[in-house]
Amino acid sequence: MNSNFERNNIAELEGYVSGEQRNDPDLIKLNTNENAYPASPQTQQALETINIEDLRRYPQPTSDNFRRAAAALHQIDPSNIIATRGGDELLRLLLTTFVDPGAAVGMTDLTYSLYPILTRIQDAHPFAVALTNDWKLPLNFTEQINAESCQLTFVVNPHAPTGTLTSAADLIKISNNINGLLVIDEAYVDFVEDPDHDLSRFAANSRNVVLLRSLSKGYGLAGLRFGYGVGPQHLIEPMLRKTRDSYNLDAISQALATAAIQDQVYAKENWKRVNAHREELVKELTKMGFDCIPSQANFVLATVPDASATSAEAIYHALRTENLLVRYFPDERISNKLRITVGRPEEQARLLALLAPILGISAA
Amino acid sequence: MNSNFERNNIAELEGYVSGEQRNDPDLIKLNTNENAYPASPQTQQALETINIEDLRRYPQPTSDNFRRAAAALHQIDPSNIIATRGGDELLRLLLTTFVDPGAAVGMTDLTYSLYPILTRIQDAHPFAVALTNDWKLPLNFTEQINAESCQLTFVVNPHAPTGTLTSAADLIKISNNINGLLVIDEAYVDFVEDPDHDLSRFAANSRNVVLLRSLSKGYGLAGLRFGYGVGPQHLIEPMLRKTRDSYNLDAISQALATAAIQDQVYAKENWKRVNAHREELVKELTKMGFDCIPSQANFVLATVPDASATSAEAIYHALRTENLLVRYFPDERISNKLRITVGRPEEQARLLALLAPILGISAA
Repeated sequence: MNSNFERNNIAELEGYVSGEQRNDPDLIKLNTNENAYPASPQTQQALETINIEDLRRYPQPTSDNFRRAAAALHQIDPSNIIATRGGDELLRLLLTTFVDPGAAVGMTDLTYSLYPILTRIQDAHPFAVALTNDWKLPLNFTEQINAESCQLTFVVNPHAPTGTLTSAADLIKISNNINGLLVIDEAYVDFVEDPDHDLSRFAANSRNVVLLRSLSKGYGLAGLRFGYGVGPQHLIEPMLRKTRDSYNLDAISQALATAAIQDQVYAKENWKRVNAHREELVKELTKMGFDCIPSQANFVLATVPDASATSAEAIYHALRTENLLVRYFPDERISNKLRITVGRPEEQARLLALLAPILGISAA
Repeated sequence: MNSNFERNNIAELEGYVSGEQRNDPDLIKLNTNENAYPASPQTQQALETINIEDLRRYPQPTSDNFRRAAAALHQIDPSNIIATRGGDELLRLLLTTFVDPGAAVGMTDLTYSLYPILTRIQDAHPFAVALTNDWKLPLNFTEQINAESCQLTFVVNPHAPTGTLTSAADLIKISNNINGLLVIDEAYVDFVEDPDHDLSRFAANSRNVVLLRSLSKGYGLAGLRFGYGVGPQHLIEPMLRKTRDSYNLDAISQALATAAIQDQVYAKENWKRVNAHREELVKELTKMGFDCIPSQANFVLATVPDASATSAEAIYHALRTENLLVRYFPDERISNKLRITVGRPEEQARLLALLAPILGISAA
């Protein structure tokens, strides 16, 4: 304990810095992978039926209505589901419940930057396996993880921040051979085009797999903070009954999240539309000389043309001056790239119109 | 790690069991200390201005609008405040940030039953100091806590489940002499009658004190899950910037909580009304032979008359059969008592009407 009472592992930690959240109606925000469109009209209807009097009492402690709806969606049992305050809460609960201080936690390099921070909060240590040059898991991934005795391993799929997809078959093989837990963070999985890419029933019946799902991206509800985990009962139950804060989800978000996942017709239309915009964005960026990593998420990691005199960082700043945000990461492996969230057509048109003069290309 | 992957401290743990939350419009619910009345009409107005489109984007990461409003209320700086998902999240953050696995965490016996559970989740060990026979802190409380080297100590004030109040002066003295952190859980403080009982400015300028405030009881918003902590910057900052889940509070609850605490006229009227109902409840229970511990909270811990042939547990079950819930705790020190939430006059009248025949007393 240092003089400020902080534990040593916390004192040494730098906190997570989220993407810029500026509140400005004129801002075009393509920096934090929010859905281009709002949640379904049925969610709006659910919101309108809520009254302040409904909030006087405690909410359902374990979000059972939502869990039943999610179970029906995935054709599994509610006991295979835990509802959480965004995916972040699930990540934390997994570490709290299954990872001892001092243990190793597996992940890839690059990956979602929150994983090593949450690992250090648990006083465990991150073990990062380098991705291949084309951002895939290396063939000996499992062997490296097992050699380090990782109690738990995070794989984000589709991968962030590149958008690349590892196949369900490859992940099943990894889970069968890995000694610890495998957490597959599917925050972006709704944008995967292959309708057969579905690991939920596999996870529910697995020995060691928990899937993370989020309503932030696929359902246009980043402001609601709602996610869920899918896994076998022996992994879900300890988080649901023991380590979860006793009332982790408020009554309003439970009602809205349930309405959102029950309107699959709207959701699937949304994903199709966002994916069509993604293809359009990639096509136009490619025309301008950007190299776009094939993405199955609602963002694109685009490499600035070699010939460009303007660096990714300078482009980021130039766009920001024009009230358009994209994400720039200083990490040297991607410091020549920009991560661009798929936006509405008019937002993407504005981006492309701004990029042309910055790169010194005449607009089409 | 056992065969189910759970950490040993988690595997050994029994989870927290919350009071029964049954959803039945005919149920009279005097078991979990919800406010008898809903939140202010301004909160309802805030709810009605929210649109699903507002939820597409991430919320304010650190709830800055709420923190400014709470700071204005307490005449302190926003940097002295952290907004949390109910008081529960603050309790957990305090342990995560300031208590090492293996360390001792101080508390009283009896106390809020969640403290030892959260302590064990952190793999620390609870050190419980017995209260005096009249449910006060013993004179050597600080010495006992320091002798055990408690890194952090929880004191709930007004006390749960008895409702007794420790004075601000006594708590200041304890905080000055205690070596570790002192967390004063003020979940019920809004119902304290003395308007001068206010520790917020003291805590904000202290070396080692964090106050917990909740909107669940005083503001009629148990379903919203919103609370906050008040303390010096060196204790608030590590929780706010490092250990807190990156977006711990959704956009709707931030807006509603801000509206609720800004309507102090309504809030103060509410507390006055609830306190008047409490006095009425105590008066009537006393007439029936119950012994009520003097309470400064929105509940009463009432001892069943010695002459009663019906035990507290039997009374609890008899009331439950009649669709009226109160709280019974099997702990032997209070197994002859019932904890009764202050209700609306018609709810309390129903309770008293049901109690008379159960106790074999003719109704007044």
